[in-house]
Amino acid sequence: MPALNPQQWLSLKRIVRFGDTDAAGVMHFYQLLRWCHEAWEESLERYGLPASDVFPNCSQNQEDPKVALPIVHCHADFRRPIKTGDHLVVELFPERIDSSSFQVQSKFQMQGDEVAIGLLRHLAIDAKTSSRCALPTSIDLWLEASSLKLGVKPI
Amino acid sequence: MPALNPQQWLSLKRIVRFGDTDAAGVMHFYQLLRWCHEAWEESLERYGLPASDVFPNCSQNQEDPKVALPIVHCHADFRRPIKTGDHLVVELFPERIDSSSFQVQSKFQMQGDEVAIGLLRHLAIDAKTSSRCALPTSIDLWLEASSLKLGVKPI
Amino acid sequence: MPALNPQQWLSLKRIVRFGDTDAAGVMHFYQLLRWCHEAWEESLERYGLPASDVFPNCSQNQEDPKVALPIVHCHADFRRPIKTGDHLVVELFPERIDSSSFQVQSKFQMQGDEVAIGLLRHLAIDAKTSSRCALPTSIDLWLEASSLKLGVKPI
Amino acid sequence: MPALNPQQWLSLKRIVRFGDTDAAGVMHFYQLLRWCHEAWEESLERYGLPASDVFPNCSQNQEDPKVALPIVHCHADFRRPIKTGDHLVVELFPERIDSSSFQVQSKFQMQGDEVAIGLLRHLAIDAKTSSRCALPTSIDLWLEASSLKLGVKPI
Repeated sequence: MPALNPQQWLSLKRIVRFGDTDAAGVMHFYQLLRWCHEAWEESLERYGLPASDVFPNCSQNQEDPKVALPIVHCHADFRRPIKTGDHLVVELFPERIDSSSFQVQSKFQMQGDEVAIGLLRHLAIDAKTSSRCALPTSIDLWLEASSLKLGVKPI
Repeated sequence: MPALNPQQWLSLKRIVRFGDTDAAGVMHFYQLLRWCHEAWEESLERYGLPASDVFPNCSQNQEDPKVALPIVHCHADFRRPIKTGDHLVVELFPERIDSSSFQVQSKFQMQGDEVAIGLLRHLAIDAKTSSRCALPTSIDLWLEASSLKLGVKPI
Repeated sequence: MPALNPQQWLSLKRIVRFGDTDAAGVMHFYQLLRWCHEAWEESLERYGLPASDVFPNCSQNQEDPKVALPIVHCHADFRRPIKTGDHLVVELFPERIDSSSFQVQSKFQMQGDEVAIGLLRHLAIDAKTSSRCALPTSIDLWLEASSLKLGVKPI
Repeated sequence: MPALNPQQWLSLKRIVRFGDTDAAGVMHFYQLLRWCHEAWEESLERYGLPASDVFPNCSQNQEDPKVALPIVHCHADFRRPIKTGDHLVVELFPERIDSSSFQVQSKFQMQGDEVAIGLLRHLAIDAKTSSRCALPTSIDLWLEASSLKLGVKPI
């Protein structure tokens, strides 16, 4: 049964590794997009959704998921240099766009300062026909549960 | 002396490699951003600008370039699946934004169809102080020479 | 029809890109293994063997190759630092080990000096059952044609 | 002060991510070498050695470490396919080779079975002159503390 507090799957950590940097001494830009995807994967798993429900060719798969979720758009903004050994907090902001697409924004913070943001937009397609289809129920549940994070309003 | 025909440094080729793909059988999305950066590097070199004029820590560097060109924004749109062995044409569209920044859009085509686009936006900063500064002259020349591609108009 | 001179598919070039380096200012070690695999892919293609004959999920595949060629061992030795913009010559030395395995050594040279070597060893397995099987005929032909490079002896 | 039980910094975990795989549906081989390096970095940090003591260009660095530790050799053996979502245990076996070099073997296990091993060999060099030098004291201490793991013998 999934965890009840969205912070448990929407607030993650990442430590920058040496291989993520380039000869200018800072993180090489496209690694951030990799981190965004890995943060999304970690979030699903923490929520309670195993990789085999979402991705093809997992060890646990009896058969592959019927719906694929390719990325149709991504972007990132870089505000400050990020370096080897930096401890980052990653906050995820998932959002349902329509019945067949969603996006996840990841904000990377260091000591309270936002150092970069990245965003991945996914489209649900039938894994066999490649035609647009409804989001899988499990992803819909994760999106709904995640939205509770934003829904608490002061009286 | 630089080549005279912008097509020589703005129209490149790339063959998709097996390691660029993921278990869904298609290019893993963030590899495209890597390709964009590598296409920019190849373009500069074909134009006549050696890596050591632009990047730090090159073999030829007596001293590092005084200006660094970090990426402050990137985005990509994915229109069709890209697979191992695909032969892509990459067309670059560099654009000066202002005195201290520029961007390069890369359009990836396969057999005449656009399969993806990526864009990298760079800011010029003083390599020592990290404060915003003017674009290096060599980059300005490349931007100007590249703009001729778009400037030829029929009478 | 394949080219006749093995040099055409066993002697390649690579230019080191900025994203291949790390914050020590030199190529990050595991990129070399990527280059080895990409050099192998380029070699097959130059020889006349399309990617779709060797790798699964290519655009041209009617059906996937019956034999997969996973890597069971790799190693690399690094002799000198390799930096952004370096122009490398890559020489490939393919070798048949037995009826179901082969290896390819790649020597990376810069201005005549050997800067690194890498080696990938592949095993042929039935793509469905994963059991060891004979090398595909096309790979056998490439191995044989490649061995001619080494086979010319003075009288 | 460093932890006392080597298991705390020599036995780590890794979950395989989608971007680590290729179109054959399994981990793409060179990612394992990346994991080995990242496991080493994680081990040092868990032991109590900050990245800024070992790597150049860290946020905390007043000045860069006087000794660099480039990789001069690596190898890996792959025994079983590794797939998206797999939970791996990584066991590190560091070993001092001589006064200026050491190596770290990483064994990757899944549900008790060894699925792959990787090894990285590092040489200590003076960061300015690039000549071979003694290992940094901090690395020597980590090596010594790590060796206790192997040293406990039954009476």
